[in-house]
Amino acid sequence: MNISAVLHEPKSRYSYIYDEDILHLRIKTGLGEVKKITVKAVDPFNWIQTDTEKFEFDYTTMQEIEMIYEGETLTHDVWFAEISGIKTKRIRYCFIIEDMLGNTYFYSPSKKCIVDKDDPIIDNNFLYFNFPYLNSEDIYKSPDWVKDTIWYQLTVSCYSTDGETPKNKELGNFKGLIEKLDYIKDLGCNALYLTPIFKGYSWHLYDTEDYFKVDDRLGTEEDFKEFVNKAHSLGIRVMLDAVFNHCGATHSFWQDVLKNGKNSIYYDCFYILDENKPILKEGIKIEADGSYKDVGDYDNNFYCFGYTTFMPKMNTNNPIMREYLLDVSKHWIEKFGIDGWRLDVSNEVSHDFWRLFRKTVKSVNKDVFIMGENWDDSYPWLMGDQFDAVMNYGVMANAVGLVAEPSKHVTIKYTPSEYKKAVYELMTKYPNGVTESLFNLVTSHDVERLLDICGDNKDKLKLCYLLMFTYCGAPCVYYGDEIGLTAKGDSRIPMIWDEDKQDLNLRKFFKKIIELRKNHVSFKSMKFEWLLTDDANNVLIYKKISTDDVTIIIVNNSDNNQLITLPAILQNQKFVDIFNDTQVQLDKTLSMAENSFYIFKEH
Amino acid sequence: MNISAVLHEPKSRYSYIYDEDILHLRIKTGLGEVKKITVKAVDPFNWIQTDTEKFEFDYTTMQEIEMIYEGETLTHDVWFAEISGIKTKRIRYCFIIEDMLGNTYFYSPSKKCIVDKDDPIIDNNFLYFNFPYLNSEDIYKSPDWVKDTIWYQLTVSCYSTDGETPKNKELGNFKGLIEKLDYIKDLGCNALYLTPIFKGYSWHLYDTEDYFKVDDRLGTEEDFKEFVNKAHSLGIRVMLDAVFNHCGATHSFWQDVLKNGKNSIYYDCFYILDENKPILKEGIKIEADGSYKDVGDYDNNFYCFGYTTFMPKMNTNNPIMREYLLDVSKHWIEKFGIDGWRLDVSNEVSHDFWRLFRKTVKSVNKDVFIMGENWDDSYPWLMGDQFDAVMNYGVMANAVGLVAEPSKHVTIKYTPSEYKKAVYELMTKYPNGVTESLFNLVTSHDVERLLDICGDNKDKLKLCYLLMFTYCGAPCVYYGDEIGLTAKGDSRIPMIWDEDKQDLNLRKFFKKIIELRKNHVSFKSMKFEWLLTDDANNVLIYKKISTDDVTIIIVNNSDNNQLITLPAILQNQKFVDIFNDTQVQLDKTLSMAENSFYIFKEH
Repeated sequence: MNISAVLHEPKSRYSYIYDEDILHLRIKTGLGEVKKITVKAVDPFNWIQTDTEKFEFDYTTMQEIEMIYEGETLTHDVWFAEISGIKTKRIRYCFIIEDMLGNTYFYSPSKKCIVDKDDPIIDNNFLYFNFPYLNSEDIYKSPDWVKDTIWYQLTVSCYSTDGETPKNKELGNFKGLIEKLDYIKDLGCNALYLTPIFKGYSWHLYDTEDYFKVDDRLGTEEDFKEFVNKAHSLGIRVMLDAVFNHCGATHSFWQDVLKNGKNSIYYDCFYILDENKPILKEGIKIEADGSYKDVGDYDNNFYCFGYTTFMPKMNTNNPIMREYLLDVSKHWIEKFGIDGWRLDVSNEVSHDFWRLFRKTVKSVNKDVFIMGENWDDSYPWLMGDQFDAVMNYGVMANAVGLVAEPSKHVTIKYTPSEYKKAVYELMTKYPNGVTESLFNLVTSHDVERLLDICGDNKDKLKLCYLLMFTYCGAPCVYYGDEIGLTAKGDSRIPMIWDEDKQDLNLRKFFKKIIELRKNHVSFKSMKFEWLLTDDANNVLIYKKISTDDVTIIIVNNSDNNQLITLPAILQNQKFVDIFNDTQVQLDKTLSMAENSFYIFKEH
Repeated sequence: MNISAVLHEPKSRYSYIYDEDILHLRIKTGLGEVKKITVKAVDPFNWIQTDTEKFEFDYTTMQEIEMIYEGETLTHDVWFAEISGIKTKRIRYCFIIEDMLGNTYFYSPSKKCIVDKDDPIIDNNFLYFNFPYLNSEDIYKSPDWVKDTIWYQLTVSCYSTDGETPKNKELGNFKGLIEKLDYIKDLGCNALYLTPIFKGYSWHLYDTEDYFKVDDRLGTEEDFKEFVNKAHSLGIRVMLDAVFNHCGATHSFWQDVLKNGKNSIYYDCFYILDENKPILKEGIKIEADGSYKDVGDYDNNFYCFGYTTFMPKMNTNNPIMREYLLDVSKHWIEKFGIDGWRLDVSNEVSHDFWRLFRKTVKSVNKDVFIMGENWDDSYPWLMGDQFDAVMNYGVMANAVGLVAEPSKHVTIKYTPSEYKKAVYELMTKYPNGVTESLFNLVTSHDVERLLDICGDNKDKLKLCYLLMFTYCGAPCVYYGDEIGLTAKGDSRIPMIWDEDKQDLNLRKFFKKIIELRKNHVSFKSMKFEWLLTDDANNVLIYKKISTDDVTIIIVNNSDNNQLITLPAILQNQKFVDIFNDTQVQLDKTLSMAENSFYIFKEH
């Protein structure tokens, strides 16, 4: 066994408190090298008095747990163990690894070596990994409702209109959106993620002018309140977009800085680089409304989002700015009862600020969901002290990477067997509680429309959603995908509301897959069993397993009709086709149309 | 190359902000597998407008940095790079790894594969590791003074007396300690770590009764104030021991709980497990002074330190307890000007509390040092939001592991070549800023006296200290080691002040090594060069390198006189023996007594 390939660290994504007295452990080992891993775990304080002055370690309290083999990533085998009933909250542990060559290894932080099975070193807990204490306040906790959520993402101005492009004057608004809530309810979604709605300059509102106001174009505060109340009455939660990395050029703090320079009390609310140079470049003209034309280049005299001059970066370490943004975060919860905050460009704002943000938000209502935009590996934000979740772009990379051809944001193409490995890579990246709460997506306003990525092939779009809906975490439907909206450019285009122009068959698919997800616990389970990953024919078959039910997903990911030879375990078996609501008696083979799928349930 | 053996994660011990616009990167690869690693790094927003509507990525802004090979650990080769001048605070990076077989790998989070050197994937920064933003408030910062500190650890009751054992009535006190400060100053130490001094029950004071009072046995508040002032006037800093995991049985909060049960306002300040059972076991008698006899066993009805019934664990999540302990943390800084807090059993207290503790302490004085007791890998506490440092027991494990025979707390024996690897393991475990600030030790009040561990061999004790003094981080002298104190049991025994009974030659060694450490920057440098690690003869020779000076340390770690064949680079060279203040003209060989050393300096 290659000992250098073994991955484990205590108090990390590999070793975390799952619940009050439950510790989860993961360890990764070189592909195909290891046969069996046993965890030995004990409270290091378990000494018993054997004599007036003598204490001996009580080995009877040592737990031995055989790890479960979870699956393989692109580089490692993954093993998992749950240690429960840690009554005293203290635990030290080591791994006893049996490799394929018959060697037994003692794997601990200070000693990693081949040992005899009865070597006393195995019991020396002084050498073990230490998880010193399971303090409840350090446990990652996201709101209970998140795990069972079907999200729906929309941009108000685009969604509740079907007339003009939103960049023109005729914009959708909250009054219109209220009328569409029944449609969303009918689809089956039970939470909304709205891109920004606060008073801003551009139509997309990512350049906020006033964080305490609803943008005039979308309606009044009363309209928004009515919308939230109606949504709640339908069982639909509402998450707003907090753009706390930068504000818009017309924000009053920034305008004050532009006007008064160093004399502004807001000067330190931003990052001016050279106080002796003009803040804005010579020649930039500020309009009467405070706006100016973007001349972003490498040479800005202040930090901004990218090099976008009209989006100055806010200094969240400044007490005025800090208090202001924290007040914003409370205001919309207290006054309107919103259910979540999506944090724009969250990875560029300090961890220090997000910790305070979490404390503030959760002190108002611990059931408010906090979700960062982060595209990359986000463990540093997901340790329980900052976010509940992030936008899980990994699901997009995996599902779209399997189904569609490479595109701007999904550049890596997967075969079925690579997809399987990528699933384990993603699924074992974070603590399980996090993985179960992630905001999963196959597209968003920041990437192309999925139907465009899929070359207008709606069957491929369906497969992407199918893969997401049978993965763990909370899936999101991007508005319009359900009726076949295409854009060929910025995905934020007006929704089509004329049913004659909607793909009603596609909408039926979404209603059904959402309904199935809600009624089959196995869909969201983290337990996969792979019955077939056939790269040559581009077919995959996997089982999803929960204690409530077991489902089997069969995907013909190829662009051809195929007669698929079923794995022995499925041959001649009876199933319920839960997507088509029919009974199925399988043969040895199964004929499948190009880019098609089946979802079977065991009797 | 075995790609599974490569270790790197952004925003981790492998990738961290070192200073405002400086990022440090480490990557570990399988032993002996890799020849060269290049980092490619770029701000992902560096797009330039090439046309009215068209933007292209500006590859001219891509940095290419060849990584420095640092050394090998027990399992990996370690590589390091510093990326400086990150003006825009944003950076994405990948590794181009050339292995010993001539293959070139692209190593990124989403793609790890062999590539041609001109494969365009190498420039696709969308696939790179992301360090989204270098926010100043997230930078790890410890007080500047720490890196140049020579610590001295003592227990007041033991130190300023040489009469009776401290467990008896005659205890040393602050009045006595004030008189000893000139001795400490003379030795060269410039900071003290005092084990607990607050009013407590036991003589060792780890069972605090009142965190706002000096224990009567040690003197008055005025005595303590006089002591701190005298120490400061001599340039000696003072660090106190904060026992915040548990208090003593006689603490008023706990006494109130014992008396009033659920009706006590302090009930939730502790962890009572079953409110329907008596808190203390039947039959335990509480004395008039509030104390009771320890009958610790697995069956306590409340959490405590280990199973020590008279040390109930405090609930630092309870607002009353939280406020109380934070007030304590401020009080001793504000009223007495102490310079540091050592946090007892820090690994069992919640991260959440320590974050608040740091904010509180640093808001009073950012130069106060915060140091946790943690014995194990402590990265989760050292990310900048909690501690400045921990007690670096790894130095003890390495130095004592090389020099002495296995003992209770140092169970692993090292050869010179294993020692070298253990040094790199330890030195590359944390961000460099942390490593430079760690509290290094070769013994403490919690382990046996070093001279006992060394089998009364003072030359071996010297070697342990020599190894620590020529390692990076701030070294600590444990009181009495400098005059040859032995204990054969609890190391906290009275200091010997009678010079006739002190080993003055040993004390001279300490004065000299401390002086050399202060005057030679290379001693604390992280740059080693190993000239010889001879396991057969138990000899090691290493160079310490700084921009100011270069020193060479030669250690005959064997129990025999030896004629050492010098490495070619040292043969026939001239050096200054800075320990003995002589000029040296080396031959091809060097005769060395058993367990002896030389420290040479290049001209």
